[in-house]
Amino acid sequence: MSQDIVLAFSGGLDTSFCVPYLRERGWKVHTVFVDTGGVDAQERAYIEQRAAELGAATHVTVDGGPALWAGFVKPFVWAGEAYQGQYPLLVSDRYLIVDAAIARAKALGTRAIAHGCTGMGNDQVRFDLAVKAQGDYEIVAPIREIQKEHTHTRAYEQAYLEQRGFPVRAKQKSYTINENLLGVTLSGGEIDAWKTPGEGARAWCRPRAEWPSRKLAVNLAFERGEAVALDGEKLPGAKLLARLNALFAPYGVGRGMYTGDTTIGLKGRIVFEAPGLIALLIAHRALEEAVLTKPQNRFKPEVARKWVELVYEGFYHDPLKTDLEAFLASSQRCVNGEVVLETEGGTVTASEIRSPHILASGSATYAQSADWGVAEAEGFIKLYGMSSTLWAKVNQQ
Amino acid sequence: MSQDIVLAFSGGLDTSFCVPYLRERGWKVHTVFVDTGGVDAQERAYIEQRAAELGAATHVTVDGGPALWAGFVKPFVWAGEAYQGQYPLLVSDRYLIVDAAIARAKALGTRAIAHGCTGMGNDQVRFDLAVKAQGDYEIVAPIREIQKEHTHTRAYEQAYLEQRGFPVRAKQKSYTINENLLGVTLSGGEIDAWKTPGEGARAWCRPRAEWPSRKLAVNLAFERGEAVALDGEKLPGAKLLARLNALFAPYGVGRGMYTGDTTIGLKGRIVFEAPGLIALLIAHRALEEAVLTKPQNRFKPEVARKWVELVYEGFYHDPLKTDLEAFLASSQRCVNGEVVLETEGGTVTASEIRSPHILASGSATYAQSADWGVAEAEGFIKLYGMSSTLWAKVNQQ
Amino acid sequence: MSQDIVLAFSGGLDTSFCVPYLRERGWKVHTVFVDTGGVDAQERAYIEQRAAELGAATHVTVDGGPALWAGFVKPFVWAGEAYQGQYPLLVSDRYLIVDAAIARAKALGTRAIAHGCTGMGNDQVRFDLAVKAQGDYEIVAPIREIQKEHTHTRAYEQAYLEQRGFPVRAKQKSYTINENLLGVTLSGGEIDAWKTPGEGARAWCRPRAEWPSRKLAVNLAFERGEAVALDGEKLPGAKLLARLNALFAPYGVGRGMYTGDTTIGLKGRIVFEAPGLIALLIAHRALEEAVLTKPQNRFKPEVARKWVELVYEGFYHDPLKTDLEAFLASSQRCVNGEVVLETEGGTVTASEIRSPHILASGSATYAQSADWGVAEAEGFIKLYGMSSTLWAKVNQQ
Amino acid sequence: MSQDIVLAFSGGLDTSFCVPYLRERGWKVHTVFVDTGGVDAQERAYIEQRAAELGAATHVTVDGGPALWAGFVKPFVWAGEAYQGQYPLLVSDRYLIVDAAIARAKALGTRAIAHGCTGMGNDQVRFDLAVKAQGDYEIVAPIREIQKEHTHTRAYEQAYLEQRGFPVRAKQKSYTINENLLGVTLSGGEIDAWKTPGEGARAWCRPRAEWPSRKLAVNLAFERGEAVALDGEKLPGAKLLARLNALFAPYGVGRGMYTGDTTIGLKGRIVFEAPGLIALLIAHRALEEAVLTKPQNRFKPEVARKWVELVYEGFYHDPLKTDLEAFLASSQRCVNGEVVLETEGGTVTASEIRSPHILASGSATYAQSADWGVAEAEGFIKLYGMSSTLWAKVNQQ
Repeated sequence: MSQDIVLAFSGGLDTSFCVPYLRERGWKVHTVFVDTGGVDAQERAYIEQRAAELGAATHVTVDGGPALWAGFVKPFVWAGEAYQGQYPLLVSDRYLIVDAAIARAKALGTRAIAHGCTGMGNDQVRFDLAVKAQGDYEIVAPIREIQKEHTHTRAYEQAYLEQRGFPVRAKQKSYTINENLLGVTLSGGEIDAWKTPGEGARAWCRPRAEWPSRKLAVNLAFERGEAVALDGEKLPGAKLLARLNALFAPYGVGRGMYTGDTTIGLKGRIVFEAPGLIALLIAHRALEEAVLTKPQNRFKPEVARKWVELVYEGFYHDPLKTDLEAFLASSQRCVNGEVVLETEGGTVTASEIRSPHILASGSATYAQSADWGVAEAEGFIKLYGMSSTLWAKVNQQ
Repeated sequence: MSQDIVLAFSGGLDTSFCVPYLRERGWKVHTVFVDTGGVDAQERAYIEQRAAELGAATHVTVDGGPALWAGFVKPFVWAGEAYQGQYPLLVSDRYLIVDAAIARAKALGTRAIAHGCTGMGNDQVRFDLAVKAQGDYEIVAPIREIQKEHTHTRAYEQAYLEQRGFPVRAKQKSYTINENLLGVTLSGGEIDAWKTPGEGARAWCRPRAEWPSRKLAVNLAFERGEAVALDGEKLPGAKLLARLNALFAPYGVGRGMYTGDTTIGLKGRIVFEAPGLIALLIAHRALEEAVLTKPQNRFKPEVARKWVELVYEGFYHDPLKTDLEAFLASSQRCVNGEVVLETEGGTVTASEIRSPHILASGSATYAQSADWGVAEAEGFIKLYGMSSTLWAKVNQQ
Repeated sequence: MSQDIVLAFSGGLDTSFCVPYLRERGWKVHTVFVDTGGVDAQERAYIEQRAAELGAATHVTVDGGPALWAGFVKPFVWAGEAYQGQYPLLVSDRYLIVDAAIARAKALGTRAIAHGCTGMGNDQVRFDLAVKAQGDYEIVAPIREIQKEHTHTRAYEQAYLEQRGFPVRAKQKSYTINENLLGVTLSGGEIDAWKTPGEGARAWCRPRAEWPSRKLAVNLAFERGEAVALDGEKLPGAKLLARLNALFAPYGVGRGMYTGDTTIGLKGRIVFEAPGLIALLIAHRALEEAVLTKPQNRFKPEVARKWVELVYEGFYHDPLKTDLEAFLASSQRCVNGEVVLETEGGTVTASEIRSPHILASGSATYAQSADWGVAEAEGFIKLYGMSSTLWAKVNQQ
Repeated sequence: MSQDIVLAFSGGLDTSFCVPYLRERGWKVHTVFVDTGGVDAQERAYIEQRAAELGAATHVTVDGGPALWAGFVKPFVWAGEAYQGQYPLLVSDRYLIVDAAIARAKALGTRAIAHGCTGMGNDQVRFDLAVKAQGDYEIVAPIREIQKEHTHTRAYEQAYLEQRGFPVRAKQKSYTINENLLGVTLSGGEIDAWKTPGEGARAWCRPRAEWPSRKLAVNLAFERGEAVALDGEKLPGAKLLARLNALFAPYGVGRGMYTGDTTIGLKGRIVFEAPGLIALLIAHRALEEAVLTKPQNRFKPEVARKWVELVYEGFYHDPLKTDLEAFLASSQRCVNGEVVLETEGGTVTASEIRSPHILASGSATYAQSADWGVAEAEGFIKLYGMSSTLWAKVNQQ
């Protein structure tokens, strides 16, 4: 009698291999594909058909957009920090994939989950920890298992599938590419070697030669730190983000490259493109700068960076993340208003900010609004610097 | 009998006013102009002649470049953080001006220092604290004094000078502009009102329409975290920074706008342009990402942000700054190597990194270099996530 | 026609002086005494009679205990940190006094508040900022006003009162003493001079010679991080804290001395005694250590220290404090259970902890509960130390 | 032909077992015993004789005191923080043992190191990482190896030794005890179960019934943050610490109990006794409070806690630790002076502080030294609280 297992399935080589591999070990395989924005309708249909062809008992496609917005994008924009100051955590769709797999497992009444992560990377940490932190599940990782025996796993997987009559799509890519609603990451080749990426290391973001000639300006409305409308049109988050990607990618906005310290302690250099997410971050930050108090603006980054670190390293379900999000949600009480973003290519600027919460005592900034006297300023300086001044008096003659 | 006082002098309205004002109160005024890069030879000559015309007893011009590099740029690039994640502390030339004024006071055997800061801004905090932290000096701030009596101080100063036969240069600028080797800041007008800056709110950085058509690539060499050569040519820091400004400004690199929480607690929105400094930061960060350990990359920003905060707020001479710089200097031991910077306009990318200290176990990143087994990875995940997993086991059924 | 003003009144010299001083300046004075635990019934009656005698239009006595527990003790224990690692913020009753004064002002329909703080200390910062952060109030500080003219303000106040026929209680104390439900602080004399405090510098906490001979053990029950019962008896917080003070003071628990960096930048050395509060902190910490995850235990102190700093410095109403409390409240979800505290004098130990949330995988700690293999431990060590190991490989031959 | 291996040897069951186990696998075993203060001359002789009896090729005893002071105690006291605010890192002698073993290996020309750590605890992490971070060594851990096959390793080790004719000392201890110059840790039994420790869970620190009746006062002199003299007598650090242990243990000072989050993610509850180290920390902190500026006192704990975390977790040789120590060393420039410590049992107080660097503008603290006016204080309060006040004005009507 076979047992049910849920497999997070993408239709690629690794997860395709997992289906017959698991079946031959006695599992009844239920594939789940979470559409987080990296595929079109045709690819979605291919994935469904592929699952059937490989022998999946059932297959479901889940629209991951809403969960990705609510579970990741919203608190990430609240946090407003990138990993190591650079990387906008594009890999975070993994957590929503885990959630969808667990939901499917619960529906099927099983506690077995399979994934196609290798034993060499960081995704396995995210996948495994996100499962373990939701209860006592059996995790099966076929690629990790065959790696214990075989060195060239991709060749092994390909041969394994072909021997069983399953066609394998040719794949001649120079780079490892990962694409979802959040953006695209590219690695491999000369990027890994700290060399200049070739022209092929590019996905959504257009080079300068292709930028539209007219300037782009868009208006984003925020409620409690969440983007809710674009140019006056109310939109669900995932749709709004997709729209921003489409608007800013032609201008090459949101492309970057960095060397990251990965969870397993090695260096990983990648190119990333996240036009919509970066635009969101910039608009939100501009609004926050104007409406949060100085103590808030000073301390919030500490909380934000810890949130980012937890999400990067797989601690998506640690209770600390919940605590940090309670802080972040509280900090957004007054982050309401509109921001105009402008680009003529390459960068994006928050050119205009409108909010009833801007911390100005009149209509404007300190240049116009000073309602204190010079003597008060002198008093402030004297006491504010008291400790330093005393140090000089005591220790420097 | 008159007493000697040293006046930090720029030749502008405020400090021009200070000369007769101080003289009429019995001071013998010694002007010091610190050239930190904002003026050309003609302007330098004008300042010297202006001081004489206004009745300064002596005038000296100090080349502030080397001190600005050693005292600010070097540790700032080591730190690698901007104020509030945005502003590259372009105002820091003030501290070198104070140092030059104090050096002049020591040479003259006086302990009186004058400056032209108003009582409404943040510069007075920097100026006063930097003086107080170097010993027991008398600080005279004429503009602050007249503000106690007069509301329209600029008109008052102008009339005061004209009554005494000193011509006043017409000044019809829409923005308050501050320029030095580090860059340019612009404030006032619609910027203050959180509106889109007009076309005039621009100094060095060219708009897209004027960008050169060819891509720019430069090679920066670092020794212990300090940039020492540009495209193979060894250069003193201040010259190197000036060269970078000249190279990157035509491409519009390093221009930004943000709302800052100022020392005196108000919001201040400014436009800034710092093409060379931003290019330096990006090159240095890319090198650090590759050669520092993960614990270093994780913790260094805490130290860096505190350094930035101290410098922003006037605590340039607090002993904590010395302690932080001891950390920063130590962290740069292995920050040696070369970085290729590329721009086609708008942004700049560290496209290539060469260093004997890159933390890779072979020729490349983790994709190729894994020298551990899958079982080891599984063990890592299990123990790394132990605490979170236990929490789920204990608290979630 | 006179105007109403609310005066925070304690019956001491400073606030006694304020009543006629304010009346003679045309104010109708409404005194508010907030009983936060430092006085007995007799003293309370004296304060009421004193207010009448001095000419207060009305007088109210407010029981400050419940507000002090809910507004300060509860989040403070959640935070679990002392100022500079030492001082348990005994001065925080000031904020509740401000709240009571503002409530009284609202009831009376006035926006004028008076207090008896001097212009030399830190309490004025707490008082003024706590008022300013609640709206647009007129703050009148008579002692600060007379200090502008007079040096020996206490003598001036005394003469002023005696001239008007108001008796002044003799006060021959060697130390400045401040007492409330939270504890007692003592300063002045040899304490100020960094010398050994005399025997008189002692209030609640008994010296060893007077400690009871039997060991004390008490059981504290916590719900969501709040102490709710003592030895099985449910008690409102303020009562529970008073009970703990009574239990632990005879054993000399909770007495300390430290030099603090005050808000106005000077050093202040004080003795403090807070037997109940310290006992609470120790019990709560012991429970948290056992039930929070490692990421929570590592990061929570960052948030806690910022909360403590804000409260110490007067930022009791900054929105950041609200944000930090959202974090702290979230972190207490599983802080439920019982702790046995034991003392035989001097120190107190959390000797026993009972909670359904203790993060142990069996009945006990890691010594017994390891459910991983040795190979997994080796894998963990290898990957956990990867970055450091690579550094050694690359940089040390 | 046999190969040389260096074994960190203590004479206990685990490391005794290692000698024949390694020999039978072809190693020539060189034992190193690092005396870090936990043993007397008789025990030292036993260890030497035991090594010979078990077949060690050579044995050396290293006086670990000086290295333990210089490498751990000195920077630890500079840091001034305990792990999780509680535990004074008594386990840190491990790093000096590793250093001694590596020094011995270099002398012998081998790169093989053995230790007796189990695969279940945290010490293996410290031992392994400290070795790996010093170069490419082969690490042999016999106990970890046999744990892969056997569950009851202590019984297995005992039988293994007895079969070969090596006597095994009876050991009937209720607790796992670890003792060195730094202090004693006790774990196991009811401690592990979050219960009240029995009377036997005690080593150096006397209970109240045995405390001397007279008060103890000692004078500690510090130079650049390092304790250099006790009651006027200059002493090398390790001797000074031993003296402090002898002085304060009779008074029960420095005993604590806490639940720690260990490196491998589990909870570990222990009792610890560190009378001398705790006395040192308290004296040093009292001096620092008086001589460091407010910015230093505020920020230094961030650096200190990271240092503590690295040392606790095995990252003793990560370059970040070097960077942090550069900060700490810099911070100690003015930490010179004398502190009087007093105890009458249970706790210890820094009752008196003398230093030319105390940050007081006269002879004393702020109570006497105010050299600013009331108007200046009002100005300070206004600008210091500006951001919070504006928030109230804008957001609260």
